[in-house]
Amino acid sequence: MTESATTADPTARHYDREFVRTFFTSPTAVEGEDDSAKMLRSAAQLRGMRAPDVWVPDNEDATAPSMRAEGVRNIVDVVREHGAAVPGEIHPRVVWHRDDPQTRYRGFQQILEITDPENGAVEHIDGFVIPEVGGVDDWKKADEFLTIAEREHGLDPESLSMSVIVESGEAELAMGDLREEMGKPANNLQRLFLLVDGEVDYTKDMRAMTPTGELPPWPELRHNTSRGASAAGLVAVDGPYDDIRDVEGYRERMRENRAKGMTGIWSLTPTQVEVANTAPLPPESGRWLLEVDGREIELDAEEGRHVYRGDGLGLEETGTGQYVLRAGGDEQTLDADELREELLDRAAYVPSMDDIVDSMEAFEDAKDAGKGAIAMTREATLEIDGVAVEHSTDRMWDEATYQAAKTPITLFQDVYEHRPDQHDDLEQRYGADVVERATNVG
Amino acid sequence: MTESATTADPTARHYDREFVRTFFTSPTAVEGEDDSAKMLRSAAQLRGMRAPDVWVPDNEDATAPSMRAEGVRNIVDVVREHGAAVPGEIHPRVVWHRDDPQTRYRGFQQILEITDPENGAVEHIDGFVIPEVGGVDDWKKADEFLTIAEREHGLDPESLSMSVIVESGEAELAMGDLREEMGKPANNLQRLFLLVDGEVDYTKDMRAMTPTGELPPWPELRHNTSRGASAAGLVAVDGPYDDIRDVEGYRERMRENRAKGMTGIWSLTPTQVEVANTAPLPPESGRWLLEVDGREIELDAEEGRHVYRGDGLGLEETGTGQYVLRAGGDEQTLDADELREELLDRAAYVPSMDDIVDSMEAFEDAKDAGKGAIAMTREATLEIDGVAVEHSTDRMWDEATYQAAKTPITLFQDVYEHRPDQHDDLEQRYGADVVERATNVG
Amino acid sequence: MTESATTADPTARHYDREFVRTFFTSPTAVEGEDDSAKMLRSAAQLRGMRAPDVWVPDNEDATAPSMRAEGVRNIVDVVREHGAAVPGEIHPRVVWHRDDPQTRYRGFQQILEITDPENGAVEHIDGFVIPEVGGVDDWKKADEFLTIAEREHGLDPESLSMSVIVESGEAELAMGDLREEMGKPANNLQRLFLLVDGEVDYTKDMRAMTPTGELPPWPELRHNTSRGASAAGLVAVDGPYDDIRDVEGYRERMRENRAKGMTGIWSLTPTQVEVANTAPLPPESGRWLLEVDGREIELDAEEGRHVYRGDGLGLEETGTGQYVLRAGGDEQTLDADELREELLDRAAYVPSMDDIVDSMEAFEDAKDAGKGAIAMTREATLEIDGVAVEHSTDRMWDEATYQAAKTPITLFQDVYEHRPDQHDDLEQRYGADVVERATNVG
Repeated sequence: MTESATTADPTARHYDREFVRTFFTSPTAVEGEDDSAKMLRSAAQLRGMRAPDVWVPDNEDATAPSMRAEGVRNIVDVVREHGAAVPGEIHPRVVWHRDDPQTRYRGFQQILEITDPENGAVEHIDGFVIPEVGGVDDWKKADEFLTIAEREHGLDPESLSMSVIVESGEAELAMGDLREEMGKPANNLQRLFLLVDGEVDYTKDMRAMTPTGELPPWPELRHNTSRGASAAGLVAVDGPYDDIRDVEGYRERMRENRAKGMTGIWSLTPTQVEVANTAPLPPESGRWLLEVDGREIELDAEEGRHVYRGDGLGLEETGTGQYVLRAGGDEQTLDADELREELLDRAAYVPSMDDIVDSMEAFEDAKDAGKGAIAMTREATLEIDGVAVEHSTDRMWDEATYQAAKTPITLFQDVYEHRPDQHDDLEQRYGADVVERATNVG
Repeated sequence: MTESATTADPTARHYDREFVRTFFTSPTAVEGEDDSAKMLRSAAQLRGMRAPDVWVPDNEDATAPSMRAEGVRNIVDVVREHGAAVPGEIHPRVVWHRDDPQTRYRGFQQILEITDPENGAVEHIDGFVIPEVGGVDDWKKADEFLTIAEREHGLDPESLSMSVIVESGEAELAMGDLREEMGKPANNLQRLFLLVDGEVDYTKDMRAMTPTGELPPWPELRHNTSRGASAAGLVAVDGPYDDIRDVEGYRERMRENRAKGMTGIWSLTPTQVEVANTAPLPPESGRWLLEVDGREIELDAEEGRHVYRGDGLGLEETGTGQYVLRAGGDEQTLDADELREELLDRAAYVPSMDDIVDSMEAFEDAKDAGKGAIAMTREATLEIDGVAVEHSTDRMWDEATYQAAKTPITLFQDVYEHRPDQHDDLEQRYGADVVERATNVG
Repeated sequence: MTESATTADPTARHYDREFVRTFFTSPTAVEGEDDSAKMLRSAAQLRGMRAPDVWVPDNEDATAPSMRAEGVRNIVDVVREHGAAVPGEIHPRVVWHRDDPQTRYRGFQQILEITDPENGAVEHIDGFVIPEVGGVDDWKKADEFLTIAEREHGLDPESLSMSVIVESGEAELAMGDLREEMGKPANNLQRLFLLVDGEVDYTKDMRAMTPTGELPPWPELRHNTSRGASAAGLVAVDGPYDDIRDVEGYRERMRENRAKGMTGIWSLTPTQVEVANTAPLPPESGRWLLEVDGREIELDAEEGRHVYRGDGLGLEETGTGQYVLRAGGDEQTLDADELREELLDRAAYVPSMDDIVDSMEAFEDAKDAGKGAIAMTREATLEIDGVAVEHSTDRMWDEATYQAAKTPITLFQDVYEHRPDQHDDLEQRYGADVVERATNVG
């Protein structure tokens, strides 16, 4: 259980983890196995990068309705036996529906049984995941059941956190009211932890259609979830990416999400967990990107130069110090300055963890020397179509830039503090020296 | 009139149509014609795919201010004479403005006259369209006038539905409050039916500008309208597409809208009505798409293969079981597995109505057999640049996938139930057998 | 000071400027200069296109914390000396933070000192900029301090306007409640003027990350800011564009913003001010655009033809009156009508100020002649790949189209009325005749 905490400021995060990278669901009872809890048991024993930040024994969609009673018993048994050693947090998902009181009552009964101290599992349970919530009044019903369970079983108030799956228009709207509602004496919504998008059911609820049956991208939903989390001090998590074989697509989705402030994502397999645990961490080495035909192409580092090998971009140096640049079927003649201008638009650098720590330390030194803002310069030799070009960018850093650049480091430090089982992986990835500087900076 | 209905759950749809594909406006009185009601009369006699789901005799923008008194008389005459035979619903648009009490009063008077039983039109009138609404308090004023009209004329309470044109920032915000407001005893907003975007006036109200004077795409407005409809049990309709000759652009806009959950769209001509009545229905035959340079190209079916004829994508098989793939000026060498990976990203299948019914039936059988989830596999031979590649995708279907995939079928069934005048067109399109299976599945 | 004004309708703008193109911040005190107010002094003396619509002596982020006391004195001195001659409005930014009462108290003290009549600056101060606001209750705290300052110093009620920097999720949500809150007797939020996005701190608050450290585009934030401004009668301004050398990127950002209804943008240098003052004004001459590979290419006007010189699009006329069009690696054979269709999608015209005035006058004449709608036709000879094609578009104009098309002219008229120091630049740009017609139309 997370230590109980109440606070005046609803936007102050008051739970252990500041970031959640991975939300991994496991069926609680599978029919036809000699041990119906087999998948729960193996999930509970994951360690390192294959172990999620939040593990969700899923007694709802992942488990057949006929197996859910047995699923509750399996959750209790497996969590009692393995819970203490699980590296992440444990948040079972129970059944719930905004339109069905019977389902809500069954969810309440599941909560009561799982949290019964006599079953010996509750001390390892961090909270519950409530699916299919509607407007904020529906959220309060689930909150009330958790409050009753805590009192009934003599647990600390708000020691059970509550996470919701946002899979209806009503729930999306509710995220705009949380700050107002969380303060009120008649509820304990301060227990809220994760806002998790559920795009499949959301698509159904919105009655959306695509020609191929693929899910729509729902950028506004993800923005509103991320904003709701930010405004109420919660953590935003994206829904399942169900094309399990498409690893690059999964990574691309997470890149998009992070640009929206949504760091976490659902994982359906230990492999997806590993990918999603790694993706938000800064890369071990920096690299240059070049925009070609609207796509960002990674350049090959080679003897201090960064080389573009494709033929989507052509560059030629004429005798007269002029350059001819071919791009997307068009051709323009540029002088050295115009070419520099053009490359400022096209070239970008992806800093490594090491680079980020360097920049932060540089700014901290400047601040100690009484400077409010400094220019961070980065230089490189880019080679395009055999022509080498000296490239240089600089960006003004002030306190705000520093704070914004700090986020990946804060994430790293949060991971390092709460996931000792991943220390080896991290040191292997970055080297002990970088890890140490990254844990101390800021 | 729609049968009166009140419900505890505001998100439950309580009107006849679940979906509205087409919202077709007609001027109510045109100057200089010997019969000023000519356009009304011809619109009232449209049948089949050229007849809209919702017909809107438009006594606002489409009709000159000087002709609107005559327009009201024309609405009454034409609806009395032809209303019984009109296949869709009839929702006249009256004048209204959030900032002008006089205009609102004129709108009230138009409502009173059109709904006067002595005029013999009201029994065919399903509701009214209110343009230029502001915040939700302004919506309540229109609702109140409809309530008074019902009482004054002895009509059933809430028998007149109310649809609004969202063409201001205030109205966009109001859509977030509907669920809260609809329950309240002091209004009858349960009568709400359509939320219709009006992008031209919205653009003016937002003071937006584009270099060419084209309307901005307003994706967030359309999302918020669709979400508002979903959260309050209403139907979302997009605004007019005024480049009447650009049929492909109109279709593309509807594709975008459906991915947002917005199934309906405004139509300005019977031709647009026909296109928009057809667009949301599943295709009669399936087809494969291939992503090339960020565009989706349709493949030609040919003796069991699906052939890409363009040269935006190049593929070559080297002796050693390796493949060379050219795309967007770049070239990569792939083994068979990597090529499969690549095609998983690029190729997609657009299922026919027949395919969707098959998948639904397959899942229903699996469910009866006690399975919670099954993999749906689809295989095909793709031919790129003369090289044939075996392609296979599979997707996990669970209850949620099934429910989401069902939407186009639910739409079809809604159309089939309420538009007998379109049965011939539908059977011509799909064949009697597919139509019958589609009406019975789910 | 803006003349005091209260109004029943919160969406009615009740301050001098209808539009604000430029929001230019200057450090209030720079260490190590013999005159720490040097930058303030030079900014105060900018005139013409290099002078901003709103000038912001910035006593927050742009000024080192240790210099802010001196900064307040500098504001008072420079505004007293130069304020009367500053062509735009003057809105100092003071310190503030939603999470820190001490910072808010310091901001209150800065306001009190700057507005003290004995300092002789207040008569030139139009209002204050409050950064880092939270929910609407936090906005009310700043509003209350301004109310107290006005009473304390015997100023007219609401004579000091208030602008906020939106740089948190809470503040983004607050913009949805302004209309409701502004009416209430316990506050004077009617004094609100600008809603300014602050994407750097917003990115930090949302904990967003991008691989290169660039700011995310935040389209939803900008939409919500523009909508909030529209719904509450305020003016929306985008945040700083910190890559100062990338002028084209700055222009592109403003183009995007205007399509969202956000006309104003932050400027960091007099050069950015000049670019941003000019960008929203209609061009002096019209031009044709052609969409090639998803990019809009400007055509070269040449002896009455508009020529595409790139090779991204190929066109060939076959003997049989057929055309072969090559685009993005694909080739299609079209007859004359299909080619026209295709060009309707690809070609677009950017009207000059002159063109816009012509169209408005044409519609006004039609209206006087009793017509509700007319078709505006535009014809041109386009030359693609050496092949000349006659092109013609027409668009229906009704009252709503007219009103929407009017926005750039309204902007021009607003500029012309409030910025006499820019009259010479405007006449040089457009010629005296066009300027005169543009100031009289509508």
